Amino acid sequence: MGPKKHKSSILERKKEVLKGLEDLGAGVYDQMDKGTFPSLEMPSRSTDNIAYDEQFRQFVLGDRRVRRSVRNIRHLKPFTQLVWAALFSDELSSQRKTSTLRDVYYSAQAYEMTFKDQQESNNIITDLETILGFSREDFNIFPEERSAVFGDLTIEYTVPGYEGKTLDLTSHPDGVLIGPALTSSEFVRTSADKIIAIEKGGLFTRFIEENVHKKYNSILVMTAGQAPRATRRFIRRLNEELNLPVYIFTDGDPWGMHIAMVIISGSANAAHLRELNTPDAKWSGVWATDIVNYKLPTDPLDEMDMKRLYELQKDPRYKDPLWRREIKTFMKIKRKAEQEAFSRYGLTYIVDEYLPQKLEETK
Amino acid sequence: MGPKKHKSSILERKKEVLKGLEDLGAGVYDQMDKGTFPSLEMPSRSTDNIAYDEQFRQFVLGDRRVRRSVRNIRHLKPFTQLVWAALFSDELSSQRKTSTLRDVYYSAQAYEMTFKDQQESNNIITDLETILGFSREDFNIFPEERSAVFGDLTIEYTVPGYEGKTLDLTSHPDGVLIGPALTSSEFVRTSADKIIAIEKGGLFTRFIEENVHKKYNSILVMTAGQAPRATRRFIRRLNEELNLPVYIFTDGDPWGMHIAMVIISGSANAAHLRELNTPDAKWSGVWATDIVNYKLPTDPLDEMDMKRLYELQKDPRYKDPLWRREIKTFMKIKRKAEQEAFSRYGLTYIVDEYLPQKLEETK
Repeated sequence: MGPKKHKSSILERKKEVLKGLEDLGAGVYDQMDKGTFPSLEMPSRSTDNIAYDEQFRQFVLGDRRVRRSVRNIRHLKPFTQLVWAALFSDELSSQRKTSTLRDVYYSAQAYEMTFKDQQESNNIITDLETILGFSREDFNIFPEERSAVFGDLTIEYTVPGYEGKTLDLTSHPDGVLIGPALTSSEFVRTSADKIIAIEKGGLFTRFIEENVHKKYNSILVMTAGQAPRATRRFIRRLNEELNLPVYIFTDGDPWGMHIAMVIISGSANAAHLRELNTPDAKWSGVWATDIVNYKLPTDPLDEMDMKRLYELQKDPRYKDPLWRREIKTFMKIKRKAEQEAFSRYGLTYIVDEYLPQKLEETK
Repeated sequence: MGPKKHKSSILERKKEVLKGLEDLGAGVYDQMDKGTFPSLEMPSRSTDNIAYDEQFRQFVLGDRRVRRSVRNIRHLKPFTQLVWAALFSDELSSQRKTSTLRDVYYSAQAYEMTFKDQQESNNIITDLETILGFSREDFNIFPEERSAVFGDLTIEYTVPGYEGKTLDLTSHPDGVLIGPALTSSEFVRTSADKIIAIEKGGLFTRFIEENVHKKYNSILVMTAGQAPRATRRFIRRLNEELNLPVYIFTDGDPWGMHIAMVIISGSANAAHLRELNTPDAKWSGVWATDIVNYKLPTDPLDEMDMKRLYELQKDPRYKDPLWRREIKTFMKIKRKAEQEAFSRYGLTYIVDEYLPQKLEETK
């Protein structure tokens, strides 16, 4: 596949976010000008309003809506907090500063705005996400966790001081951190024809050392366990903007399986958001059936693992035959295996034998 | 301070490691040639043989030694495992492949070498460290965790495929991952005159955005909580090879204090190793007295925190007046504060006001 040129999406999106924040503020002013009590409306995020949507292939919110009106004395505080959160997000976005949920909680005090605890401020940020339909990373509130990427992709920064600068993502063989600067960059050019996401740092490094990016023409993403939302969005962008298939490799246990599932189908916690999941991504291993077929060294499934399997069995995201088969097989063999277990056949077996077979099998 | 040119230390060190491994093997052969049962000797790592050394300013092992001889049937297995670990490390080092402790455990099976569990294989690797006086990262066994660095430092890679290539550590504004490739690189040039180590990712990003590297002429290191050993060694190299002072900023609680202490004085677990700690590094904050002086928002110290303070009070590493004063103050105020707490004065207060004061105070 030849180089691709991708038109700007990041700056457009930044503008939309700022527009959304301004509209929110303008709406409040308008209502006051008309002499009515200002109010805000958003879809309810309570459990009974969350359902799995076959079309979007993710959890979505239903039709039920909640309204916060300052006419109601009990709404006065959360309404004010929400408007403050919008103000603060607008400042972050327009000044191009990033922040964390923890920072938001403390920053409130600089504005004499009080939150009982961090849970309260986190909830208000989720309210803001729900109203705007953008995730907090879009208004520059980032998690602490960082994952990484490596491969033939040239990106162009949009962050202050680096505008227009490019970076080739093979520049640093330990991998390139996926932080605010990388997620807000434009994709300029790639020769890769697939994305390979890997759960663990050790294996990510092994893949780089063994030139998986060249041998299999791929961009490698390390999720570092459960992928942070910014990384899930980044994988989606690689899939959508570069039109590349995504293959996910995790440990062979219910937790690894679910790391893949959240990348594919998202989480109930993010039912109010779109574009965090990659519905066409494939879970390529380590499957329970791989454990059997490759005679991997295993550990027994413990009580927590079994409990988790029963939960997954009831989860609407796990209804497809592949997932059902793998859950059943786990329950039958009652064993789990880590990705590193392939080292029993030598350090490069996973790259030379397992990887190509699974890429073919899940194509 | 002008640019510095540093002569090669990494390749020399790699040679020494390989030499150590070969000598170990040759010693075993020699003993067999002479018709004696081969044996290996090393300092004992049992608690009563670990003491704090005032000269090295770290924990060291005492004079008591243990010997593993195949004459003793109970030593046969650990002796064989140890020789295998040396063989495997030699293969990793000469083929320039990296690995993890988990990988070592599984890789043994490829050689029909068995370990009861991972604890057993980890112990054998620590034995090998003790015999050779090099840490496992020196023979290419790395941890999963990754921290990051950012600032005006040009490094030159020594890993295969990147030999001779350089990277400016301001290339990626999310920070550059500290993995096997970075830790095995040579330092070529810097204009920085100090190192600032920071516990948290969010603050690391804030520091980059606020140009702390330029304003305070510094190289920024994110430890990501307790600094991985590779990062502690990296900080030591920055201090030693570039002759730059190191300032450490952590949360204001016993755990943050100890993150700084381990960078400065090392851990009892690594008493068999040198060159992982940076004795002249300074803990610059957040001190208990800072919590008082800056009127920071706080949380109460819980039972675990208090228990930890009593432990630290008895720890020989904490005997200097500064540490004693801070432990006492924590015990008196019974409160803790995170680095983000400074956001109560606005997002840039920590950079504009607190940081320069503390750099001056701990110079």
